[in-house]
Amino acid sequence: MNFAVYVPPQAEAGLVPVLYYLAGLTCNEKNFVEKGGAQRYAAEHGLMLVAPDTSPRGIDIPGADNDWDFGSGAGFYVNATEQPWAKHYQMYDYVVDELPTLVRGEFEISDRAGIFGHSMGGHGALICGLKNPDKYASISAFAPIAAPAQCDWGKKAFAGYLGANQSAWAAYDATELVKQAKGTVGPILIDQGEGDQFLADGQLLPEVFAAACQESGQALQLRRQPGYDHSYYFISTFMGDHIRHHADALCS
Amino acid sequence: MNFAVYVPPQAEAGLVPVLYYLAGLTCNEKNFVEKGGAQRYAAEHGLMLVAPDTSPRGIDIPGADNDWDFGSGAGFYVNATEQPWAKHYQMYDYVVDELPTLVRGEFEISDRAGIFGHSMGGHGALICGLKNPDKYASISAFAPIAAPAQCDWGKKAFAGYLGANQSAWAAYDATELVKQAKGTVGPILIDQGEGDQFLADGQLLPEVFAAACQESGQALQLRRQPGYDHSYYFISTFMGDHIRHHADALCS
Repeated sequence: MNFAVYVPPQAEAGLVPVLYYLAGLTCNEKNFVEKGGAQRYAAEHGLMLVAPDTSPRGIDIPGADNDWDFGSGAGFYVNATEQPWAKHYQMYDYVVDELPTLVRGEFEISDRAGIFGHSMGGHGALICGLKNPDKYASISAFAPIAAPAQCDWGKKAFAGYLGANQSAWAAYDATELVKQAKGTVGPILIDQGEGDQFLADGQLLPEVFAAACQESGQALQLRRQPGYDHSYYFISTFMGDHIRHHADALCS
Repeated sequence: MNFAVYVPPQAEAGLVPVLYYLAGLTCNEKNFVEKGGAQRYAAEHGLMLVAPDTSPRGIDIPGADNDWDFGSGAGFYVNATEQPWAKHYQMYDYVVDELPTLVRGEFEISDRAGIFGHSMGGHGALICGLKNPDKYASISAFAPIAAPAQCDWGKKAFAGYLGANQSAWAAYDATELVKQAKGTVGPILIDQGEGDQFLADGQLLPEVFAAACQESGQALQLRRQPGYDHSYYFISTFMGDHIRHHADALCS
Protein backbone atom coordinates (compact mmCIF):
# COMPACT_ATOMS: atom_id res chain seq x y z
CA MET A 1 0.00 0.00 0.00
CA ASN A 2 1.37 3.39 -1.02
CA PHE A 3 0.63 6.49 0.99
CA ALA A 4 1.75 10.11 0.75
CA VAL A 5 3.21 12.08 3.65
CA TYR A 6 3.93 15.78 4.09
CA VAL A 7 6.15 16.63 7.06
CA PRO A 8 5.91 20.29 8.15
CA PRO A 9 8.98 22.27 9.24
CA GLN A 10 7.72 22.27 12.85
CA ALA A 11 8.51 18.53 13.03
CA GLU A 12 12.20 19.40 13.37
CA ALA A 13 11.50 21.05 16.72
CA GLY A 14 8.98 18.68 18.27
CA LEU A 15 6.06 16.30 17.92
CA VAL A 16 3.37 17.39 15.44
CA PRO A 17 -0.25 16.22 15.10
CA VAL A 18 -1.29 14.19 12.05
CA LEU A 19 -4.14 14.99 9.69
CA TYR A 20 -5.32 12.06 7.57
CA TYR A 21 -6.89 12.71 4.17
CA LEU A 22 -9.05 10.10 2.43
CA ALA A 23 -9.51 10.48 -1.32
CA GLY A 24 -12.49 9.75 -3.53
CA LEU A 25 -13.46 7.27 -6.22
CA THR A 26 -10.76 6.53 -8.87
CA CYS A 27 -8.10 8.41 -6.87
CA ASN A 28 -4.91 7.13 -5.36
CA GLU A 29 -2.50 8.58 -2.80
CA LYS A 30 -1.27 11.24 -5.23
CA ASN A 31 -4.31 13.37 -6.10
CA PHE A 32 -4.42 15.16 -2.77
CA VAL A 33 -0.73 16.03 -2.59
CA GLU A 34 -0.56 17.11 -6.23
CA LYS A 35 -3.82 19.04 -6.53
CA GLY A 36 -5.09 19.83 -3.04
CA GLY A 37 -2.67 22.64 -2.20
CA ALA A 38 -2.75 21.63 1.48
CA GLN A 39 1.00 21.69 2.14
CA ARG A 40 1.22 25.47 2.44
CA TYR A 41 -1.43 25.51 5.19
CA ALA A 42 -0.04 22.43 6.93
CA ALA A 43 3.34 24.18 7.02
CA GLU A 44 1.72 27.26 8.50
CA HIS A 45 -0.05 25.39 11.30
CA GLY A 46 2.44 22.58 11.90
CA LEU A 47 0.39 19.58 10.84
CA MET A 48 1.72 16.40 9.26
CA LEU A 49 -0.43 15.18 6.36
CA VAL A 50 -0.94 11.50 5.55
CA ALA A 51 -2.93 10.42 2.49
CA PRO A 52 -3.52 6.71 1.82
CA ASP A 53 -4.65 5.03 -1.39
CA THR A 54 -8.35 4.29 -1.93
CA SER A 55 -8.24 0.50 -2.18
CA PRO A 56 -5.88 -2.46 -2.08
CA ARG A 57 -3.69 -2.68 -5.19
CA GLY A 58 -1.62 -5.32 -6.93
CA ILE A 59 -3.92 -8.21 -6.06
CA ASP A 60 -5.70 -10.34 -8.59
CA ILE A 61 -9.46 -10.35 -7.99
CA PRO A 62 -11.50 -11.05 -11.15
CA GLY A 63 -13.62 -8.00 -11.97
CA ALA A 64 -11.82 -5.66 -9.56
CA ASP A 65 -10.94 -3.29 -12.40
CA ASN A 66 -14.24 -3.46 -14.29
CA ASP A 67 -16.04 -0.57 -12.55
CA TRP A 68 -14.78 2.84 -11.58
CA ASP A 69 -17.11 2.95 -8.55
CA PHE A 70 -16.41 -0.52 -7.13
CA GLY A 71 -13.24 -2.57 -6.56
CA SER A 72 -9.91 -0.95 -7.40
CA GLY A 73 -9.91 2.72 -6.44
CA ALA A 74 -13.23 2.31 -4.67
CA GLY A 75 -12.65 0.53 -1.35
CA PHE A 76 -15.26 2.72 0.40
CA TYR A 77 -13.32 2.50 3.68
CA VAL A 78 -15.22 -0.56 4.92
CA ASN A 79 -14.11 -4.00 6.08
CA ALA A 80 -15.55 -6.27 3.40
CA THR A 81 -17.27 -9.45 4.53
CA GLU A 82 -18.31 -10.74 1.11
CA GLN A 83 -16.10 -12.90 -1.11
CA PRO A 84 -13.85 -12.40 -3.01
CA TRP A 85 -13.27 -9.01 -1.32
CA ALA A 86 -13.10 -9.95 2.35
CA LYS A 87 -9.45 -11.03 2.40
CA HIS A 88 -7.91 -7.77 1.11
CA TYR A 89 -10.60 -5.08 1.17
CA GLN A 90 -10.23 -4.20 4.84
CA MET A 91 -9.86 -0.48 4.27
CA TYR A 92 -11.54 0.56 7.52
CA ASP A 93 -9.02 -1.33 9.64
CA TYR A 94 -6.22 -0.12 7.39
CA VAL A 95 -7.15 3.54 7.87
CA VAL A 96 -7.91 3.52 11.60
CA ASP A 97 -5.33 0.98 12.85
CA GLU A 98 -2.74 -0.38 10.44
CA LEU A 99 -1.71 2.88 8.78
CA PRO A 100 -1.53 4.98 11.99
CA THR A 101 0.61 2.25 13.60
CA LEU A 102 2.94 2.31 10.60
CA VAL A 103 3.09 6.12 10.64
CA ARG A 104 3.86 6.19 14.37
CA GLY A 105 6.73 3.79 13.77
CA GLU A 106 8.25 5.90 11.01
CA PHE A 107 7.71 9.48 12.23
CA GLU A 108 7.93 11.38 15.50
CA ILE A 109 4.33 12.49 15.95
CA SER A 110 2.09 13.55 18.79
CA ASP A 111 -0.91 11.47 19.83
CA ARG A 112 -3.37 13.96 18.35
CA ALA A 113 -4.94 13.31 14.95
CA GLY A 114 -7.70 14.57 12.70
CA ILE A 115 -9.30 13.17 9.56
CA PHE A 116 -10.85 14.61 6.44
CA GLY A 117 -11.57 13.61 2.87
CA HIS A 118 -13.45 14.12 -0.37
CA SER A 119 -16.56 12.40 -1.73
CA MET A 120 -16.07 8.66 -0.99
CA GLY A 121 -13.20 9.83 1.23
CA GLY A 122 -15.47 12.37 2.90
CA HIS A 123 -17.73 9.44 3.75
CA GLY A 124 -14.63 7.63 5.02
CA ALA A 125 -13.58 10.56 7.18
CA LEU A 126 -17.05 10.91 8.67
CA ILE A 127 -17.39 7.24 9.57
CA CYS A 128 -13.84 6.84 10.87
CA GLY A 129 -14.22 10.00 12.94
CA LEU A 130 -17.70 9.24 14.27
CA LYS A 131 -16.74 5.68 15.23
CA ASN A 132 -13.48 6.68 16.91
CA PRO A 133 -13.74 9.93 18.88
CA ASP A 134 -10.74 8.72 20.90
CA LYS A 135 -8.56 8.57 17.77
CA TYR A 136 -9.66 11.66 15.87
CA ALA A 137 -10.12 15.02 17.56
CA SER A 138 -11.38 16.76 14.40
CA ILE A 139 -13.40 15.84 11.31
CA SER A 140 -14.20 17.61 8.06
CA ALA A 141 -15.23 16.70 4.52
CA PHE A 142 -15.51 18.07 1.00
CA ALA A 143 -18.71 16.95 -0.74
CA PRO A 144 -18.96 13.68 1.20
CA ILE A 145 -21.20 10.75 0.35
CA ALA A 146 -23.03 11.54 3.53
CA ALA A 147 -25.80 8.95 3.53
CA PRO A 148 -24.34 6.04 1.51
CA ALA A 149 -27.09 3.55 2.34
CA GLN A 150 -29.52 5.87 0.55
CA CYS A 151 -27.60 6.58 -2.69
CA ASP A 152 -26.67 4.49 -5.72
CA TRP A 153 -22.89 4.59 -5.15
CA GLY A 154 -23.26 3.49 -1.54
CA LYS A 155 -25.86 0.83 -2.21
CA LYS A 156 -23.68 -0.77 -4.89
CA ALA A 157 -20.57 -0.68 -2.71
CA PHE A 158 -22.24 -1.86 0.49
CA ALA A 159 -24.10 -4.67 -1.29
CA GLY A 160 -20.86 -5.80 -2.92
CA TYR A 161 -18.59 -5.57 0.11
CA LEU A 162 -21.05 -6.19 2.97
CA GLY A 163 -23.83 -8.25 1.39
CA ALA A 164 -27.52 -7.76 0.88
CA ASN A 165 -28.38 -7.60 4.59
CA GLN A 166 -28.73 -3.88 5.14
CA SER A 167 -28.38 -4.15 8.90
CA ALA A 168 -24.62 -4.48 8.32
CA TRP A 169 -24.56 -1.23 6.35
CA ALA A 170 -25.44 1.06 9.24
CA ALA A 171 -22.03 0.54 10.82
CA TYR A 172 -20.52 2.39 7.83
CA ASP A 173 -23.17 5.02 7.19
CA ALA A 174 -22.39 8.48 8.58
CA THR A 175 -26.04 9.42 8.79
CA GLU A 176 -26.79 6.37 10.94
CA LEU A 177 -23.62 6.70 13.00
CA VAL A 178 -24.14 10.35 13.88
CA LYS A 179 -27.46 9.47 15.46
CA GLN A 180 -25.55 7.29 17.92
CA ALA A 181 -22.59 9.61 18.49
CA LYS A 182 -24.62 11.77 20.88
CA GLY A 183 -22.28 14.72 21.03
CA THR A 184 -19.03 12.85 21.69
CA VAL A 185 -17.58 14.35 18.52
CA GLY A 186 -16.45 17.95 18.00
CA PRO A 187 -18.01 20.24 15.41
CA ILE A 188 -17.86 18.84 11.88
CA LEU A 189 -17.08 21.09 8.89
CA ILE A 190 -18.51 20.17 5.47
CA ASP A 191 -18.17 22.15 2.24
CA GLN A 192 -20.49 21.27 -0.63
CA GLY A 193 -20.41 22.85 -4.08
CA GLU A 194 -23.87 23.79 -5.32
CA GLY A 195 -22.79 23.18 -8.93
CA ASP A 196 -21.72 19.62 -8.11
CA GLN A 197 -23.32 17.17 -10.57
CA PHE A 198 -23.20 14.38 -8.01
CA LEU A 199 -25.18 16.54 -5.59
CA ALA A 200 -27.84 16.96 -8.26
CA ASP A 201 -27.72 13.21 -8.91
CA GLY A 202 -28.56 12.46 -5.28
CA GLN A 203 -25.27 10.70 -4.52
CA LEU A 204 -24.11 13.01 -1.72
CA LEU A 205 -27.24 13.88 0.33
CA PRO A 206 -25.71 16.42 2.74
CA GLU A 207 -29.22 17.52 3.76
CA VAL A 208 -29.96 14.01 5.01
CA PHE A 209 -26.80 14.02 7.10
CA ALA A 210 -27.53 17.54 8.36
CA ALA A 211 -30.98 16.46 9.52
CA ALA A 212 -29.47 13.53 11.39
CA CYS A 213 -26.93 15.85 13.02
CA GLN A 214 -29.68 18.16 14.14
CA GLU A 215 -31.68 15.22 15.49
CA SER A 216 -28.74 13.96 17.55
CA GLY A 217 -27.30 17.29 18.66
CA GLN A 218 -24.14 16.95 16.58
CA ALA A 219 -22.57 20.33 15.81
CA LEU A 220 -22.23 20.70 12.04
CA GLN A 221 -21.12 23.58 9.84
CA LEU A 222 -22.45 22.74 6.38
CA ARG A 223 -21.39 25.40 3.89
CA ARG A 224 -23.00 25.41 0.47
CA GLN A 225 -20.64 27.05 -2.02
CA PRO A 226 -22.42 28.54 -5.05
CA GLY A 227 -21.05 27.49 -8.44
CA TYR A 228 -18.45 25.01 -7.25
CA ASP A 229 -18.30 21.51 -8.72
CA HIS A 230 -16.89 18.20 -7.40
CA SER A 231 -13.28 18.77 -8.53
CA TYR A 232 -9.98 19.47 -6.84
CA TYR A 233 -10.42 23.10 -7.91
CA PHE A 234 -13.28 23.17 -5.40
CA ILE A 235 -11.22 21.33 -2.80
CA SER A 236 -8.13 23.53 -3.15
CA THR A 237 -10.27 26.68 -2.90
CA PHE A 238 -11.49 25.78 0.59
CA MET A 239 -8.45 23.78 1.73
CA GLY A 240 -7.16 26.62 3.91
CA ASP A 241 -10.41 26.71 5.88
CA HIS A 242 -10.35 22.95 6.45
CA ILE A 243 -6.74 22.88 7.61
CA ARG A 244 -7.53 25.73 10.02
CA HIS A 245 -10.55 23.78 11.31
CA HIS A 246 -8.27 20.87 12.17
CA ALA A 247 -5.46 23.06 13.50
CA ASP A 248 -7.90 24.71 15.91
CA ALA A 249 -8.61 21.29 17.41
CA LEU A 250 -5.17 19.71 17.11
CA CYS A 251 -2.62 22.46 17.67
CA SER A 252 -4.07 24.22 20.72
CA MET B 1 -5.00 24.11 -29.74
CA ASN B 2 -6.29 23.85 -26.18
CA PHE B 3 -5.47 26.45 -23.59
CA ALA B 4 -6.52 26.99 -19.98
CA VAL B 5 -7.89 30.27 -18.63
CA TYR B 6 -8.55 31.48 -15.10
CA VAL B 7 -10.71 34.60 -14.85
CA PRO B 8 -10.37 36.42 -11.52
CA PRO B 9 -13.40 37.96 -9.74
CA GLN B 10 -12.06 41.47 -10.53
CA ALA B 11 -12.92 40.88 -14.20
CA GLU B 12 -16.58 41.48 -13.37
CA ALA B 13 -15.81 45.09 -12.47
CA GLY B 14 -13.32 46.05 -15.17
CA LEU B 15 -10.43 45.14 -17.45
CA VAL B 16 -7.78 42.91 -15.91
CA PRO B 17 -4.19 42.27 -17.04
CA VAL B 18 -3.23 38.83 -18.39
CA LEU B 19 -0.42 36.64 -17.17
CA TYR B 20 0.67 33.92 -19.60
CA TYR B 21 2.21 30.71 -18.28
CA LEU B 22 4.29 28.43 -20.51
CA ALA B 23 4.69 24.82 -19.35
CA GLY B 24 7.64 22.46 -19.64
CA LEU B 25 8.52 19.29 -21.53
CA THR B 26 5.78 16.61 -21.65
CA CYS B 27 3.18 18.99 -20.19
CA ASN B 28 -0.02 20.27 -21.72
CA GLU B 29 -2.36 23.12 -20.80
CA LYS B 30 -3.59 21.31 -17.66
CA ASN B 31 -0.51 20.85 -15.46
CA PHE B 32 -0.32 24.47 -14.39
CA VAL B 33 -3.99 24.91 -13.53
CA GLU B 34 -4.20 21.58 -11.71
CA LYS B 35 -0.91 21.62 -9.81
CA GLY B 36 0.43 25.18 -9.78
CA GLY B 37 -1.91 26.62 -7.16
CA ALA B 38 -1.81 30.00 -8.92
CA GLN B 39 -5.53 30.75 -8.96
CA ARG B 40 -5.68 31.85 -5.32
CA TYR B 41 -2.99 34.48 -5.90
CA ALA B 42 -4.40 35.57 -9.24
CA ALA B 43 -7.75 36.09 -7.51
CA GLU B 44 -6.06 38.15 -4.82
CA HIS B 45 -4.27 40.46 -7.26
CA GLY B 46 -6.81 40.50 -10.09
CA LEU B 47 -4.84 38.79 -12.85
CA MET B 48 -6.24 36.61 -15.60
CA LEU B 49 -4.17 33.48 -16.22
CA VAL B 50 -3.73 31.91 -19.66
CA ALA B 51 -1.81 28.66 -20.11
CA PRO B 52 -1.31 27.21 -23.61
CA ASP B 53 -0.26 23.71 -24.59
CA THR B 54 3.43 22.96 -25.26
CA SER B 55 3.25 21.93 -28.94
CA PRO B 56 0.83 21.46 -31.80
CA ARG B 57 -1.43 18.40 -31.34
CA GLY B 58 -3.54 16.23 -33.53
CA ILE B 59 -1.30 16.42 -36.56
CA ASP B 60 0.43 13.46 -38.13
CA ILE B 61 4.19 13.98 -38.35
CA PRO B 62 6.17 10.71 -38.39
CA GLY B 63 8.33 10.49 -35.26
CA ALA B 64 6.61 13.37 -33.45
CA ASP B 65 5.74 11.09 -30.53
CA ASN B 66 9.01 9.15 -30.36
CA ASP B 67 10.89 11.43 -27.93
CA TRP B 68 9.67 13.13 -24.75
CA ASP B 69 12.07 16.05 -25.34
CA PHE B 70 11.32 16.73 -29.01
CA GLY B 71 8.14 16.91 -31.07
CA SER B 72 4.80 16.48 -29.27
CA GLY B 73 4.88 18.18 -25.88
CA ALA B 74 8.22 19.79 -26.70
CA GLY B 75 7.68 22.66 -29.13
CA PHE B 76 10.33 24.78 -27.39
CA TYR B 77 8.44 27.98 -28.27
CA VAL B 78 10.31 28.53 -31.54
CA ASN B 79 9.16 28.97 -35.14
CA ALA B 80 10.52 25.84 -36.81
CA THR B 81 12.21 26.28 -40.18
CA GLU B 82 13.17 22.64 -40.75
CA GLN B 83 10.91 20.08 -42.37
CA PRO B 84 8.64 18.35 -41.46
CA TRP B 85 8.14 20.69 -38.47
CA ALA B 86 7.99 24.11 -40.16
CA LYS B 87 4.33 23.99 -41.16
CA HIS B 88 2.83 23.43 -37.69
CA TYR B 89 5.57 24.00 -35.11
CA GLN B 90 5.24 27.79 -35.01
CA MET B 91 4.93 28.01 -31.26
CA TYR B 92 6.69 31.37 -30.93
CA ASP B 93 4.17 33.09 -33.18
CA TYR B 94 1.36 31.20 -31.49
CA VAL B 95 2.36 32.42 -28.03
CA VAL B 96 3.19 36.05 -28.84
CA ASP B 97 0.58 36.78 -31.54
CA GLU B 98 -2.08 34.20 -32.33
CA LEU B 99 -3.06 33.27 -28.77
CA PRO B 100 -3.16 36.87 -27.41
CA THR B 101 -5.33 37.90 -30.36
CA LEU B 102 -7.68 35.02 -29.65
CA VAL B 103 -7.78 35.86 -25.93
CA ARG B 104 -8.49 39.54 -26.63
CA GLY B 105 -11.41 38.49 -28.80
CA GLU B 106 -12.94 36.27 -26.13
CA PHE B 107 -12.31 38.21 -22.91
CA GLU B 108 -12.44 41.81 -21.73
CA ILE B 109 -8.82 42.42 -20.79
CA SER B 110 -6.50 45.35 -20.40
CA ASP B 111 -3.53 45.89 -22.70
CA ARG B 112 -1.05 44.89 -19.98
CA ALA B 113 0.46 41.41 -19.92
CA GLY B 114 3.20 39.43 -18.25
CA ILE B 115 4.73 36.03 -19.00
CA PHE B 116 6.26 33.24 -16.95
CA GLY B 117 6.90 29.54 -17.20
CA HIS B 118 8.72 26.44 -16.06
CA SER B 119 11.78 24.69 -17.50
CA MET B 120 11.23 24.65 -21.30
CA GLY B 121 8.42 27.11 -20.57
CA GLY B 122 10.77 29.23 -18.49
CA HIS B 123 12.98 29.42 -21.57
CA GLY B 124 9.87 30.34 -23.56
CA ALA B 125 8.90 33.08 -21.11
CA LEU B 126 12.40 34.55 -21.13
CA ILE B 127 12.70 34.67 -24.92
CA CYS B 128 9.15 35.92 -25.53
CA GLY B 129 9.62 38.59 -22.88
CA LEU B 130 13.09 39.66 -23.96
CA LYS B 131 12.10 39.87 -27.62
CA ASN B 132 8.88 41.80 -26.94
CA PRO B 133 9.24 44.39 -24.18
CA ASP B 134 6.25 46.17 -25.74
CA LYS B 135 4.02 43.11 -25.22
CA TYR B 136 5.14 41.88 -21.80
CA ALA B 137 5.69 44.21 -18.86
CA SER B 138 6.94 41.47 -16.53
CA ILE B 139 8.91 38.22 -16.81
CA SER B 140 9.68 35.39 -14.40
CA ALA B 141 10.65 31.73 -14.58
CA PHE B 142 10.89 28.57 -12.51
CA ALA B 143 14.03 26.55 -13.30
CA PRO B 144 14.24 27.78 -16.91
CA ILE B 145 16.41 26.30 -19.63
CA ALA B 146 18.32 29.54 -19.53
CA ALA B 147 21.03 28.95 -22.12
CA PRO B 148 19.50 26.41 -24.51
CA ALA B 149 22.21 26.65 -27.18
CA GLN B 150 24.65 25.32 -24.57
CA CYS B 151 22.70 22.34 -23.15
CA ASP B 152 21.69 18.96 -24.55
CA TRP B 153 17.93 19.61 -24.52
CA GLY B 154 18.32 22.90 -26.35
CA LYS B 155 20.87 21.64 -28.86
CA LYS B 156 18.61 18.75 -29.81
CA ALA B 157 15.54 20.96 -30.14
CA PHE B 158 17.25 23.80 -31.99
CA ALA B 159 19.03 21.45 -34.39
CA GLY B 160 15.76 19.68 -35.11
CA TYR B 161 13.53 22.73 -35.48
CA LEU B 162 16.03 25.34 -36.73
CA GLY B 163 18.74 23.32 -38.45
CA ALA B 164 22.44 22.87 -37.93
CA ASN B 165 23.35 26.51 -38.56
CA GLN B 166 23.77 27.81 -35.05
CA SER B 167 23.46 31.44 -36.07
CA ALA B 168 19.70 30.87 -36.21
CA TRP B 169 19.67 29.60 -32.64
CA ALA B 170 20.64 32.91 -31.02
CA ALA B 171 17.21 34.40 -31.80
CA TYR B 172 15.69 31.89 -29.35
CA ASP B 173 18.40 31.76 -26.68
CA ALA B 174 17.69 33.86 -23.58
CA THR B 175 21.37 34.19 -22.77
CA GLU B 176 22.10 35.63 -26.21
CA LEU B 177 18.95 37.77 -26.26
CA VAL B 178 19.57 39.39 -22.89
CA LYS B 179 22.89 40.70 -24.14
CA GLN B 180 20.98 42.68 -26.77
CA ALA B 181 18.07 43.79 -24.57
CA LYS B 182 20.19 46.53 -22.99
CA GLY B 183 17.91 47.33 -20.10
CA THR B 184 14.62 47.64 -22.01
CA VAL B 185 13.14 44.87 -19.85
CA GLY B 186 12.08 45.14 -16.20
CA PRO B 187 13.65 43.07 -13.46
CA ILE B 188 13.42 39.32 -14.08
CA LEU B 189 12.64 36.87 -11.24
CA ILE B 190 13.99 33.32 -11.45
CA ASP B 191 13.64 30.58 -8.82
CA GLN B 192 15.90 27.54 -9.13
CA GLY B 193 15.80 24.51 -6.83
CA GLU B 194 19.25 23.40 -5.73
CA GLY B 195 18.12 19.77 -5.55
CA ASP B 196 16.98 19.85 -9.19
CA GLN B 197 18.49 16.92 -11.09
CA PHE B 198 18.36 18.84 -14.36
CA LEU B 199 20.42 21.61 -12.78
CA ALA B 200 23.04 19.04 -11.86
CA ASP B 201 22.85 17.62 -15.39
CA GLY B 202 23.73 21.01 -16.90
CA GLN B 203 20.41 21.45 -18.72
CA LEU B 204 19.36 24.70 -17.03
CA LEU B 205 22.53 26.82 -16.65
CA PRO B 206 21.08 29.74 -14.64
CA GLU B 207 24.62 30.90 -13.84
CA VAL B 208 25.32 31.38 -17.55
CA PHE B 209 22.19 33.49 -17.93
CA ALA B 210 23.00 35.44 -14.76
CA ALA B 211 26.46 36.27 -16.10
CA ALA B 212 24.92 37.52 -19.34
CA CYS B 213 22.44 39.65 -17.38
CA GLN B 214 25.28 41.18 -15.40
CA GLU B 215 27.24 41.84 -18.59
CA SER B 216 24.30 43.63 -20.21
CA GLY B 217 22.94 45.45 -17.16
CA GLN B 218 19.74 43.40 -17.01
CA ALA B 219 18.22 43.36 -13.52
CA LEU B 220 17.81 39.76 -12.35
CA GLN B 221 16.73 38.25 -9.06
CA LEU B 222 18.00 34.66 -9.19
CA ARG B 223 16.95 32.80 -6.05
CA ARG B 224 18.50 29.42 -5.34
CA GLN B 225 16.13 27.38 -3.20
CA PRO B 226 17.89 24.69 -1.15
CA GLY B 227 16.46 21.17 -1.41
CA TYR B 228 13.81 21.87 -4.06
CA ASP B 229 13.58 19.73 -7.18
CA HIS B 230 12.13 20.36 -10.66
CA SER B 231 8.53 19.44 -9.80
CA TYR B 232 5.26 21.30 -9.42
CA TYR B 233 5.75 21.00 -5.64
CA PHE B 234 8.66 23.41 -6.14
CA ILE B 235 6.60 25.61 -8.46
CA SER B 236 3.56 25.80 -6.19
CA THR B 237 5.75 26.65 -3.19
CA PHE B 238 7.01 29.85 -4.82
CA MET B 239 3.95 30.60 -6.97
CA GLY B 240 2.74 33.35 -4.65
CA ASP B 241 6.02 35.23 -5.00
CA HIS B 242 5.90 35.02 -8.80
CA ILE B 243 2.32 36.21 -9.06
CA ARG B 244 3.19 39.12 -6.78
CA HIS B 245 6.20 39.94 -9.00
CA HIS B 246 3.88 40.21 -12.00
CA ALA B 247 1.12 42.02 -10.10
CA ASP B 248 3.64 44.67 -9.01
CA ALA B 249 4.30 45.43 -12.67
CA LEU B 250 0.83 44.87 -14.12
CA CYS B 251 -1.65 46.03 -11.49
CA SER B 252 -0.12 49.34 -10.43
